[in-house]
Amino acid sequence: MNAKLLVAGVAAVLGVAVAQGALAQAKPEVLVKQRQAVMTLQGKYFGPMAGMAQGKVPYNAAAVQRNAGFLDNLSRMAWDGFDPSTKGEKSRALPSIYDDSGKFKQATSRLENETSKLVSLTRSADEAAVKAQIGAVGKSCGGCHDDFRQKQ
Amino acid sequence: MNAKLLVAGVAAVLGVAVAQGALAQAKPEVLVKQRQAVMTLQGKYFGPMAGMAQGKVPYNAAAVQRNAGFLDNLSRMAWDGFDPSTKGEKSRALPSIYDDSGKFKQATSRLENETSKLVSLTRSADEAAVKAQIGAVGKSCGGCHDDFRQKQ
Repeated sequence: MNAKLLVAGVAAVLGVAVAQGALAQAKPEVLVKQRQAVMTLQGKYFGPMAGMAQGKVPYNAAAVQRNAGFLDNLSRMAWDGFDPSTKGEKSRALPSIYDDSGKFKQATSRLENETSKLVSLTRSADEAAVKAQIGAVGKSCGGCHDDFRQKQ
Repeated sequence: MNAKLLVAGVAAVLGVAVAQGALAQAKPEVLVKQRQAVMTLQGKYFGPMAGMAQGKVPYNAAAVQRNAGFLDNLSRMAWDGFDPSTKGEKSRALPSIYDDSGKFKQATSRLENETSKLVSLTRSADEAAVKAQIGAVGKSCGGCHDDFRQKQ
């Protein structure tokens, strides 16, 4: 079977997501769902590392290395979901994201840089340095949440 | 500020997700939310590649390389969410996931292997080979959905 036919069959199985992704700008509600999915997974992989940095769970170098790698990828996935077309969707994203996009971009770049640095550090065996950097990553999450997310 | 104090402050900002991740096995509803978040993002990054393989959108080697890298990471994130504790949660996951866990594991490994192969191929300039491999990745998504997901 050639690739084109094969993928057409697969697209039918996977449904709308494929068609939307391939053919058009995703709808605002899809963009919000996707960016929230990123945040959900950032929590999944940052959570255990935060626990280790706080000394609440035993330090596990292999788990930190894995989680840091995932988090580094995830830290790059959400931003194109903050499209002006999503302004009317239900979410905790504040208008400041679009009104001060330069500052928002700065905050998102900071997270990307801090997670990259964490990945590099997990390749060493310096537990204290890794724990300090987990703190820096967390601070960069908080930096964005403070300024660009509605308080609950 | 020391790392421990810093992370404690961050944990307070990020809320429950951090505490749950650090302190205990995640609750079944959290596991389902997390694994569904992975599927949402797999759709986001596979969709455009499927469109390119089908010739519906112009081939963009840089986009494929980026998406393949993300997808390769994502293809490893969902499986620990299919914990037996989630059996009672609302989802399309079929009991066969737990009743035939060997076959499920085989299907999930296949996706991981196919996405790894795609990442390797995107480093070459062979567009036809990349497109064929996008088809193989999609087929491995479908393989799991056919056997382990409730039809809609």
